[in-house]
Amino acid sequence: MGRWQPDSRGRLQEAALSLYAERGFDQTTAAEIAARAGVTERTFFRHFADKREVLFGGSALLQERLVAAVAEAPEGYGPLDAVAAGLGAAATLLGQFRRDLSRQRHAVIAANPELRERERAKLADYAAAVAATLRERGVPEPQATLAAEAGMTVLPVALGRWAAGPTDRDLSTVVRDVLAELRALVASG
Amino acid sequence: MGRWQPDSRGRLQEAALSLYAERGFDQTTAAEIAARAGVTERTFFRHFADKREVLFGGSALLQERLVAAVAEAPEGYGPLDAVAAGLGAAATLLGQFRRDLSRQRHAVIAANPELRERERAKLADYAAAVAATLRERGVPEPQATLAAEAGMTVLPVALGRWAAGPTDRDLSTVVRDVLAELRALVASG
Repeated sequence: MGRWQPDSRGRLQEAALSLYAERGFDQTTAAEIAARAGVTERTFFRHFADKREVLFGGSALLQERLVAAVAEAPEGYGPLDAVAAGLGAAATLLGQFRRDLSRQRHAVIAANPELRERERAKLADYAAAVAATLRERGVPEPQATLAAEAGMTVLPVALGRWAAGPTDRDLSTVVRDVLAELRALVASG
Repeated sequence: MGRWQPDSRGRLQEAALSLYAERGFDQTTAAEIAARAGVTERTFFRHFADKREVLFGGSALLQERLVAAVAEAPEGYGPLDAVAAGLGAAATLLGQFRRDLSRQRHAVIAANPELRERERAKLADYAAAVAATLRERGVPEPQATLAAEAGMTVLPVALGRWAAGPTDRDLSTVVRDVLAELRALVASG
């Protein structure tokens, strides 16, 4: 048995994101990530199924938090307010991730068509799950799908601004601001 | 040279959509589509690069019309009004397609993960092109991306309702209605 490693997972994420940024995602192997993190390849595979999961491993938990917050929003909330509650929960979770790593993740995904596709598919899954939750709250179609899809457009925009921004505003504030921009925009035409 | 065929392209589309619906997209070959349409396989490949292009062949033209209408919207139009003009142009183009074929297309894509992925990628391309056009109109970020992305959510919802609907409302009307639902939704929370 190897020496106990404090937070191997975190170091693997950090090493992976640096390598993806330096060499490109396709040119990086799990063995190289493990080497840079100072762990064995076996340790890499104990934490991640493959090198793509370093980027998307948190999405099941994110969807769970998002959906739970939409489901538990106060009864009087309109569909977009319920989605806003979900976005708030997502921001709380994602905001725990280091901002510099979030920025690297964003850049790596933006540079690779297959990863962009994967990110879009995840967002579409979140939107479909949120729309289903809104229907369970009694929201009819097409309102449920429109609120879920329009609401989900806030997430990548807010993440991009948060990661790129020079300020120390937290992600929850950025999400609220972007959602307010969306409301203002739709109101003004 | 074979006998001249009136509207081989239209018959190929119709044959392809029937076969995709009956057997599934993956289980259908170009040869089978050609046979059902009563043309040679060579004629199929004169009209379409592959069997996927039967479903997505119109997307370059659609994007062109959408972007042109956004670019040419009156100067005083807000971002979402400019996007609405683009959606109107898209509806005019797509509304020329037979409603029963549009319904079949919708069902075929919904049943196949790879095709859904492809449809999502097309919508993301439209949104990116529309956002770029809004920026050229002087709309800042994040408003340009939010207006483009939120506006594009209207298109699949409207197409789905138009194709499924029992009424004889034309697609332009359905697009306007769905956009009005989006506005009402965002206004009411």
